[in-house]
Amino acid sequence: MNRYAIDKVEGLVTDVAVAAGVPRDDAALLADSLVDADLHGTSTHGVSRLNIYVRRIQAGLIDPAAELLVEKRRPAVLVVDANHGLGQVQAAKTLDLLTSLAGEYGIASATIRNSQHFGALSYYCNRAAEQDMVLLAMTNCEPAMSPAGGCEAFFGTNPIASSFPTGKGFPLKVDLATSLVARGNVIAANKAGKPIPEGWALDVDGNPTTDAAAALEGTVLTMAGHKGSALAAMVELFSGVLSGAAVASQVGSMYKHMDRKQNVGHFFSLVDVAAFLDPAELRARVDRMIDGMKACRRRPGVDEILVPGEPESRKAEDNRRHGIPIGEATLEELKTLCQEFNLGFTLVPCCD
Amino acid sequence: MNRYAIDKVEGLVTDVAVAAGVPRDDAALLADSLVDADLHGTSTHGVSRLNIYVRRIQAGLIDPAAELLVEKRRPAVLVVDANHGLGQVQAAKTLDLLTSLAGEYGIASATIRNSQHFGALSYYCNRAAEQDMVLLAMTNCEPAMSPAGGCEAFFGTNPIASSFPTGKGFPLKVDLATSLVARGNVIAANKAGKPIPEGWALDVDGNPTTDAAAALEGTVLTMAGHKGSALAAMVELFSGVLSGAAVASQVGSMYKHMDRKQNVGHFFSLVDVAAFLDPAELRARVDRMIDGMKACRRRPGVDEILVPGEPESRKAEDNRRHGIPIGEATLEELKTLCQEFNLGFTLVPCCD
Repeated sequence: MNRYAIDKVEGLVTDVAVAAGVPRDDAALLADSLVDADLHGTSTHGVSRLNIYVRRIQAGLIDPAAELLVEKRRPAVLVVDANHGLGQVQAAKTLDLLTSLAGEYGIASATIRNSQHFGALSYYCNRAAEQDMVLLAMTNCEPAMSPAGGCEAFFGTNPIASSFPTGKGFPLKVDLATSLVARGNVIAANKAGKPIPEGWALDVDGNPTTDAAAALEGTVLTMAGHKGSALAAMVELFSGVLSGAAVASQVGSMYKHMDRKQNVGHFFSLVDVAAFLDPAELRARVDRMIDGMKACRRRPGVDEILVPGEPESRKAEDNRRHGIPIGEATLEELKTLCQEFNLGFTLVPCCD
Repeated sequence: MNRYAIDKVEGLVTDVAVAAGVPRDDAALLADSLVDADLHGTSTHGVSRLNIYVRRIQAGLIDPAAELLVEKRRPAVLVVDANHGLGQVQAAKTLDLLTSLAGEYGIASATIRNSQHFGALSYYCNRAAEQDMVLLAMTNCEPAMSPAGGCEAFFGTNPIASSFPTGKGFPLKVDLATSLVARGNVIAANKAGKPIPEGWALDVDGNPTTDAAAALEGTVLTMAGHKGSALAAMVELFSGVLSGAAVASQVGSMYKHMDRKQNVGHFFSLVDVAAFLDPAELRARVDRMIDGMKACRRRPGVDEILVPGEPESRKAEDNRRHGIPIGEATLEELKTLCQEFNLGFTLVPCCD
C-alpha cells in the first residue's frame, strides 16, 4: 500500500469537503479527524469514509452547513440537535461547549441526536485528554448485532471509549466496539474481497459465516456473549434512547439507506480532572498504573505487554515519519471526487 | 437449599451489624443491600459477605461508624473519602448527596476512596432508577485478572453498571464484571468444593485450571480478551486512579489481607433524566427498545429473549414469594456470629 504525506491528504480532504458544501473550518476539522484515524492505524474510520459522506451530502441526507442547536440546557447538561450535520463537526463543536461547562461544574454531559457516523470515538477522547479532561463517549450505530439469543441485526456495534492523560507521550486510550470485532473490519474485508475469520459473524439465517458480504447482510457477534450484548444495550440507552435519536434497528444505514437520514445518537460525559485532583498528580498515577501493567509476569510467547493506546501511538509515530497508507479503493474514490469537483488530484506516493 | 423469610434475614443481619458496632440506620441499609442481592439471585454479593465484613470490623480494618468526608467540591463533583467505613453505607450516602446535585445541575459525579467491597453495583443503580435518574457506576476490586498478555493478578474484576427506568416493573439493568465470569462464582465454587469450568481462570503459573482454589491464587480471565482487559483498565482509571484510592494490585484483599485495609475506589456519575427529556417519555422509549429486543428473530433452541435485568427480576419475584435461599456455609457463619454476639438465632426455614 502506498503512503502519502499527511498534510497533502488533509489538504485534499478539506478541498473535497469544501467543494461538497462544507464551510472551510468545518472541512478542516473533518479532514483532521479522518486523517487522525488513518494516522493511528484505524483506517476503517479514516479517509475511506469521505466518499460516502459526500454522497450522502449530495443526496440531501447530510446537511454540510447545519447549525448546532442546543435544544435544552441544565447548568451542566446540553441536549443537542445536530440537525443532520456532519457527525465529526457537530460532535467536536459540542465537545468545545462541554469543555467550558466541565471546567465550571467539574463534570458536564451532552446528548446529540440527528447525527451521523462520526468516526472514531478516540478522536474526541484524545482531544479532551490533551486538556486534562476525561471524556467518556458512546454512540449507537446502524444495526449490526443481535441481542443475546437472537439473530437479527438490532444494535449497532455500539462502542464506548475514554482516554486518560499520561506522561508517556500518548494517552491511555480505551476505545472498543461491543462487537467481537469492529464492523469496519468486515466492511474492509468485503471491500478487499477477503473472507473473515470464523466466529466473527452470522449470516441472515443465523448460521456462522466467513463470507464478509453475507456477514454484512446478517449480524456480527457481540463480544463476550451476553455481556457484550448487555454493554451494547447500555450504550444504546445512553446514546440512542436518552438522546431522543433513532434507537437500535431504527438507525439508518450509511451505505444501504441512500433514501433516509441516519439519525445516530451520541452521549458525551466530560470530567475536568482538576475537580478531582491535580492534573500532574493524575498523570503520575496513570503512569504508575501503566508501569505496573507492563511489569506484569507475561504469558509464554508474549514479548511485551502493551497498554491500550500504545500500539496505535507507535503506529502513528511510524506513519508520521513515512506517511499514511491509503488503499487502492479509497484512492480511486478520491480521484473520482476530485474529477467531479474539478479539483486537481495532488496526491503522490511519498518516498521515505 | 433452605429458604428464609426476607424480613427475618434482614432483621438478623441488622442485629449482627449493630452488635458489631454499626449504627442502626447504617446497619439497616447494609442489610437491605445484602438481602437485595440474595433476592435477585446474586448471592455472591449477598448475606454471604456479612461474616467477612464483621471480621474486618473486629480486626480494625473497617470502621463501622466512619464519617463520610467530602474532601473537595466543585458544583457538580464530590471527592469523597469513605474513611474506611462500610462500602455499602458510604456509597449509599454519597448517592444521596449526588441525587440532589444531579437534580440541580443535570449531572453530578463522585469518586470515593478509602472504601471497601461494597456489594453489587446494581443496588445503587436500581435505587437511582427508581428516582428517574441514571447512575453509571464503576469500582475497582482486589487483584484478580491480568492485563492482556500477562498472567499476574493485577486488575480486579472491575465491574461497570447502569440501570435505566422502564415501565415494565423492573429496571433495564446492566451490571457486568469485566472478567469472563464474576470472581464471586469462583469463590462460591471454592466454598462448595466444586471445580470451575475450563476457560475461566489461570493458575499462578499462567496455566489453565479448573481448580477453584488454584484459580483464586492465580488469575481469572478477562472477558473478550484484550477488550475486557481494556475495559478493566478504564474502570480502574475512573474508580482507582481518579479517586486517589489504591490502584489495581495495590488494593487490599478482603479475605487474604487481614492485616491491612482495602482502600477500594468507586466512581459514580449520576444523570437526571429530566434534564434530557420527560421521564415518562424516557420510560416509554426504553420500553420500546425492550419490546424490539424481545421481538428479534431467535437463534435455534432459544425460546425467549430476556433483556438485562429480566432474569434477576423474575428470580426476585420467586424469592419474594418463597423466601430467599441461604447456603449451609453462610447459615453456619450467621449462627456463629449470633452466638458470639449473644443474639438469638431466629431464622427458621420457611414453608411456602
